[in-house]
Amino acid sequence: MDTHFQKELAQLKENLLKMATLVEETIRDAILALMNRDAEMIKRTMEKEDKINAMENAIDEMCLKLLALRQPLATDLRFITSAMKIVTDLERMGDQAVNIAERAASLNQEPQLKPYIDIPRMAEIVQTMVKDVLDAFVNGDSKLARSVCERDDLVDGLNDQVHRELLTYMMSDPKTTPRAVHLMIVSRCLERIADHATNIAEDVIFVVDALVIKHHADQKAEKEKE
Amino acid sequence: MDTHFQKELAQLKENLLKMATLVEETIRDAILALMNRDAEMIKRTMEKEDKINAMENAIDEMCLKLLALRQPLATDLRFITSAMKIVTDLERMGDQAVNIAERAASLNQEPQLKPYIDIPRMAEIVQTMVKDVLDAFVNGDSKLARSVCERDDLVDGLNDQVHRELLTYMMSDPKTTPRAVHLMIVSRCLERIADHATNIAEDVIFVVDALVIKHHADQKAEKEKE
Repeated sequence: MDTHFQKELAQLKENLLKMATLVEETIRDAILALMNRDAEMIKRTMEKEDKINAMENAIDEMCLKLLALRQPLATDLRFITSAMKIVTDLERMGDQAVNIAERAASLNQEPQLKPYIDIPRMAEIVQTMVKDVLDAFVNGDSKLARSVCERDDLVDGLNDQVHRELLTYMMSDPKTTPRAVHLMIVSRCLERIADHATNIAEDVIFVVDALVIKHHADQKAEKEKE
Repeated sequence: MDTHFQKELAQLKENLLKMATLVEETIRDAILALMNRDAEMIKRTMEKEDKINAMENAIDEMCLKLLALRQPLATDLRFITSAMKIVTDLERMGDQAVNIAERAASLNQEPQLKPYIDIPRMAEIVQTMVKDVLDAFVNGDSKLARSVCERDDLVDGLNDQVHRELLTYMMSDPKTTPRAVHLMIVSRCLERIADHATNIAEDVIFVVDALVIKHHADQKAEKEKE
């Protein structure tokens, strides 16, 4: 085993974790911006975007170098190519967080439409999904990654619920419409972050179990075993 | 030059094109489903989803095999790793098309809210972006890929316009709200498809020019040249 290569892989893992932590913080800041109507948090969310983008490019570059110079096989190959997909998902999570902060900035111009109940619940689940998928990645824990995939349905359900509730606001009082639409988009952004976490979870399972579970390929595989 | 490897790369390119053509058709069907209130087109859109997902998995697998067995360098390495990112974007475009078809199914239950003007314009631009980015990919045409990136702003602008117009509908007549929200989501789906086309365009430029233009790294590079 080439120890220099092992060090490079550890460095790649560390950089991915740094990027993921930054994305996690950005999501947390965006939610705080919304919940606490906090202009400082909006600014902090926006400021992190450039840094996330720069990290995406740097990690991509690192992966390409590793592929070219080390010509890895099996698990290492899957790890590096998955890392290239993971950074794309992380960067898009960051975009969604920025989108939430932008909506918070608009919402802060007006009185709060309603006490937020489902949105913070969604945000909490989504943040746990992001945290867990990173832990799953670092520890090669495909069981934890699977539990992240399972929680995606919960978030989809909450998003539908928020959507329906806001529709009734808009229909009973049209003056609420602009604020309700902003909140619908916030809810949808959270749902998209959960989707990206699920994508990463699928990549983790792929690296760990060398198994494609995307698109229910797992169910097909199970059936073939029977 | 290993001609067998060249044949494999040609096969990969062909599979990517097949997948892209299928995605293009799915977007076209979804738009027809909406514009013509056509239930048959809704069905056709839905049916293509599984096929797109299966192609994503198959192409991913093919790329991993090529990386492992051929250990490609330089342009070939960039081509294969970009192919893995491109299939992810193509698959998500397909998801957005299915989302549009679902909204069309709901909208078809009720009278049409308004004559559609900006949405078909958006759809036309988006479809051209998808078509052009594939041509750019096949012909290694980074100039065409750059023009795809430029059109993204146009689509964002139209999305904002549609959004504003629908808000006024909802506010003046709350009964229109459910339909207006469906249309807002259709518009947002089109905007997301344009984003994915832009992602692919960036990958094409990367393969062709070996240059990362993501996140305005190109502007920085230009400045450095000065």
